[in-house]
Amino acid sequence: MPVPRQVFIAVIGAGGVGKCFLSQLSQLTSNLARSPSAPTTLSLVWLSTSKKAVYHADYKPLGNWESDLEASTSPTLPLPDLASYLEKAPGKAVLIDNTSNQDVADSYPLFLRKGISIVTPNKKAFSSTSQLWRDIFSAASNGTGAGGYIFHESSVGAGLPVLSALKELVETGDQVRKIEGVFSGTMSFLFNSFQPVAGGGGKFSAEVKTAKDKGFTEPDPRDDLNGLDVARKLTILARLAGLEVESPTSFPVQSLIPKELEAVASGDEFMARLPEFDDQMDELKTAAEKEGKVVRFVGSVDVPKGEVKVGLEKFDTSHPIAALKGSDNIIAFYTERYGDNPLIIQGAGAGGEVTAMGVTGDLIKVLRLLQ
Amino acid sequence: MPVPRQVFIAVIGAGGVGKCFLSQLSQLTSNLARSPSAPTTLSLVWLSTSKKAVYHADYKPLGNWESDLEASTSPTLPLPDLASYLEKAPGKAVLIDNTSNQDVADSYPLFLRKGISIVTPNKKAFSSTSQLWRDIFSAASNGTGAGGYIFHESSVGAGLPVLSALKELVETGDQVRKIEGVFSGTMSFLFNSFQPVAGGGGKFSAEVKTAKDKGFTEPDPRDDLNGLDVARKLTILARLAGLEVESPTSFPVQSLIPKELEAVASGDEFMARLPEFDDQMDELKTAAEKEGKVVRFVGSVDVPKGEVKVGLEKFDTSHPIAALKGSDNIIAFYTERYGDNPLIIQGAGAGGEVTAMGVTGDLIKVLRLLQ
Repeated sequence: MPVPRQVFIAVIGAGGVGKCFLSQLSQLTSNLARSPSAPTTLSLVWLSTSKKAVYHADYKPLGNWESDLEASTSPTLPLPDLASYLEKAPGKAVLIDNTSNQDVADSYPLFLRKGISIVTPNKKAFSSTSQLWRDIFSAASNGTGAGGYIFHESSVGAGLPVLSALKELVETGDQVRKIEGVFSGTMSFLFNSFQPVAGGGGKFSAEVKTAKDKGFTEPDPRDDLNGLDVARKLTILARLAGLEVESPTSFPVQSLIPKELEAVASGDEFMARLPEFDDQMDELKTAAEKEGKVVRFVGSVDVPKGEVKVGLEKFDTSHPIAALKGSDNIIAFYTERYGDNPLIIQGAGAGGEVTAMGVTGDLIKVLRLLQ
Repeated sequence: MPVPRQVFIAVIGAGGVGKCFLSQLSQLTSNLARSPSAPTTLSLVWLSTSKKAVYHADYKPLGNWESDLEASTSPTLPLPDLASYLEKAPGKAVLIDNTSNQDVADSYPLFLRKGISIVTPNKKAFSSTSQLWRDIFSAASNGTGAGGYIFHESSVGAGLPVLSALKELVETGDQVRKIEGVFSGTMSFLFNSFQPVAGGGGKFSAEVKTAKDKGFTEPDPRDDLNGLDVARKLTILARLAGLEVESPTSFPVQSLIPKELEAVASGDEFMARLPEFDDQMDELKTAAEKEGKVVRFVGSVDVPKGEVKVGLEKFDTSHPIAALKGSDNIIAFYTERYGDNPLIIQGAGAGGEVTAMGVTGDLIKVLRLLQ
């Protein structure tokens, strides 16, 4: 009978993804405790939001995290103090960062060097300066360092196995030539509705309003339309494919925010004035239509040329990118071994449950490596 | 400076997949030897075909395996002797089975119990009796046992990340409702040519002949057309999704071999008489066309109903399965978390390099777990 081992889990963030993850964690904890071959006790010892935290100095597992967090009046600790707390845990510790916070991301090297593993969908850790990327992977055991492990599948395409597929192509010696796809659920929805393959579609500003009303956009839709979210994902993919990318603003990114509306004070004012620019978008649509094509907002990495770009492109209506549905993502890997027909991964690339699933999947990978 | 560790590798099979794997192994061996964080020496100590073997009693690594194998006059050892040889190696050992041999598959539990890990594209190990499946996974460390690890990504869809994706859905607690797809490169090519979405296409017998001439079929095309290859893959997927499947002949599998030709003596005679049945296939095509659909040879698993089936189905021309190109595979996972739009994985599901890539990827996973 193998001896059960204990792994200490700290979670930062209890928003949409965080809540779904905590529910998946609770199910995983029950499953692992019952595993006949390698029973594992996952102890959730820390949960914090930007404002407060719940934890016990003696690493006693949290009970009902939802009510505990609500009842808590303790402000959260500074990140270095959390790192020390986890370093002193009587067993291996894993930090789950379910935020999109730059400060938390900046502290990853510190956690990793202390032997704490990290699992996260936080894009900012992997798409900021190349210095931060190097600091993270030179500290991590699955980089060149000797610290904790780090996995971030959900930072691109949520739970879709995009990063694991790319890593395997690279590690097994395939030559990645090009990566191309639709990497934003918001952009996918907007253009699949604006110019469906079957024809029709509404005015661009109307589609943005619909997407906003359905909760598919950030509170200020400009935060989607500026292309930065997609640029961050492309930065991550390009780096994993072996390119040096200084930052997500170091390559061409097309913003869909009209110049004139960049500086307007509020998202509401932006939405009110967006219809003034519908004619420009309709021109693009008509031009594509004349070539038998549709317009889509895509990102691509040309690995041999070292080129990364994000913006509008035209696709034949029979192209898999044109035929995408709803708010799905699609990612095509063109490689030497796959030849002309790429390896394609497609499906929901946003949403609490599927993003949390990528995080939970990564946690399982870390637990196997910590054996 | 970490101490380099040594892992002993034995390879059975030096055919199409075997040769590609040996070339990928040689590249991986160089990469791992240079790894700054965890240098690993992979020592290829055994290589055998059905007829002969090359190895040294003192575990000295093989030099030039190609010329060594050609020059060898040693018959291969019985499998239990190979298992003892690897068990006594002065370090961890991994058996790579690049055959499709049932005897080798039947011996996996023996190897695993001796602590030898296994990586293989050999479908027969996972799609024969449910007793063999249980014996394998009750011996393996990544099953319920304490023996070696076993991975078999390439047994379905070659290097496409199909099994790893399915395992992650299950392990993270998603509910898989249905798995559906085209799982045979041969069947994909045949039907994409027989009834292209854009219309046209040749007689069925002519497409079989083209596929045979291009090397896309087994030497006797009946070995593809009987549906057993697809049934074996569905057996594996259904078992990973949690269903009890007794064998690949325990559920409905539609054979495309006309009853009258099942017993003809040779593949050549079969090919000569196949045109007699073109009218029957044309009827199916016309019937589908009248509904605006195309015919495809697919497999599906309905998890809640516990139903597995393989055969011809009709799909709308806009369906991703209809739009498949060349000899690509496509696999759609319908799950609770993904909702109406499934997680789709698509690309080449056959061929030496991509099959070997799945094997190499699995070997890397085993090496990480053996740390």
